[in-house]
Amino acid sequence: MGIGDDCAVVVPQSKDLLLCSDMLVEHTHFETSYFRASDIGFKSVVVNLSDIAAMGGIPKYVLCAVSGPKNFPIDEVLEGVQMACYTYNADLVGGDISRSTEIVVTISVVGTSNNLVPMLRSKAAPGDSIVITGPTGRSSAGLRSLSKKGQRPEHPSEVELAHLRPKARVTAGRVAAEFGTKAAIDISDGLALDLHRVADASGVGFQLERVPFVSPATAEDALFGGEDYELLLFHPDGELLVEMLEEVLEGTRATVIGKVVEDPTTRDLQGEPLLKRGYLH
Amino acid sequence: MGIGDDCAVVVPQSKDLLLCSDMLVEHTHFETSYFRASDIGFKSVVVNLSDIAAMGGIPKYVLCAVSGPKNFPIDEVLEGVQMACYTYNADLVGGDISRSTEIVVTISVVGTSNNLVPMLRSKAAPGDSIVITGPTGRSSAGLRSLSKKGQRPEHPSEVELAHLRPKARVTAGRVAAEFGTKAAIDISDGLALDLHRVADASGVGFQLERVPFVSPATAEDALFGGEDYELLLFHPDGELLVEMLEEVLEGTRATVIGKVVEDPTTRDLQGEPLLKRGYLH
Repeated sequence: MGIGDDCAVVVPQSKDLLLCSDMLVEHTHFETSYFRASDIGFKSVVVNLSDIAAMGGIPKYVLCAVSGPKNFPIDEVLEGVQMACYTYNADLVGGDISRSTEIVVTISVVGTSNNLVPMLRSKAAPGDSIVITGPTGRSSAGLRSLSKKGQRPEHPSEVELAHLRPKARVTAGRVAAEFGTKAAIDISDGLALDLHRVADASGVGFQLERVPFVSPATAEDALFGGEDYELLLFHPDGELLVEMLEEVLEGTRATVIGKVVEDPTTRDLQGEPLLKRGYLH
Repeated sequence: MGIGDDCAVVVPQSKDLLLCSDMLVEHTHFETSYFRASDIGFKSVVVNLSDIAAMGGIPKYVLCAVSGPKNFPIDEVLEGVQMACYTYNADLVGGDISRSTEIVVTISVVGTSNNLVPMLRSKAAPGDSIVITGPTGRSSAGLRSLSKKGQRPEHPSEVELAHLRPKARVTAGRVAAEFGTKAAIDISDGLALDLHRVADASGVGFQLERVPFVSPATAEDALFGGEDYELLLFHPDGELLVEMLEEVLEGTRATVIGKVVEDPTTRDLQGEPLLKRGYLH
């Protein structure tokens, strides 16, 4: 794997680099009863690419460290990793393989900002519209369905796929950054918790008007369920940003769901306080 | 940890980047009976920095993903990580923390070649001297000692420290690359096996004259024991390279131990074939 030397050597085209590293651990993040080895590899890459997407960056290079028990098909994890890299035009350049009782996959990604200013959690401003790149709650509805079945179906439903093979909104993040969006976050731990995080980092409040979700996901899933990897984007002209996004987001709908307000204690959904609760693991 | 956003943003000063990622796993790479949490963090960084050193690069940015059981002091792992980063002038820029039964630490490093040509395993040439940056076998002697004691002594011996807190030969690798060394490898799986790897990649043979080791390490440790992280350097003028290294390597001695020959089937130590055997885990 990699180039057979101690490190990979790459020549990036841009000045700024974005670096991130996230791990998926068996029993904490997935069960092999309903995750194929290739799903684990694919999802491990996507959760990292989503961090790049949240800053408006472009993923370039991927490193992959995998450990698992003796009979676990690490090669199939790597197939999933390679498929995700191929899907998002990133290069798998190296990594490490080891032995462990539990399966652990750590992915590290080097991305580029392409000389744009990265979007940050701390840059949401009063008056900004809050835009979401798609409905939330699908992943937690999918997890519930998979857990109930106790195995991966031959043909997973849409929400099951949303959990097993999530999408990273790289193009949406890119378009948002090019369109002058200053603040963003990816929804990894639930819309409510991640929105509170942006509000905390920016010292602002928010008023949500609606939260889009589709059956069989529930409002509870949509607000407090994790791992959807849609982006929350904060922009002064939300309607125009949605128009820009509609052109690049195939098959999903971006929506303005509320606005940022000055008072950091105002954090409401349709006038009721929104709990700071989420999906932590 | 990190900057509290989704990715770290860095501005590298050089064109080429070196990327690597290695993991340490409990029971496979260490036992907590004789490894403190901070040792695990420190060593995890060093094994990665050693990969950068083997290519003549300079480490710049470190990402750290740690998982462990509920009562395991992950903070102490991070202390060790930070100490190693401080020691080698690299910046810890981000990472991830998770929960698992076994302790797993994955470190990823972004380094720079500073616009020099990276040393490769495939560039050893007939006539090159083989230079080693210090005696080998200490780490495996230290592991034997620690395993026998079953706990980390208050004041570990030199070989025990060589195993718990190894050194990465970053400066030596740098000097070697600046002095025109084309081929190198770090000794992670034993001198014999790593030397064979370079010979395989370069399509050459070798004749070793001597292998430096110091008591209580044995010749067996020195040839076939792993995790010493000294560098093997391949250069046409080995004696002059040793002189250059002596100026920068404090407290250790670089030595010419043999030479590269054209016939790839000649792989001898003092005229006897050297086994392709090592320390794999």
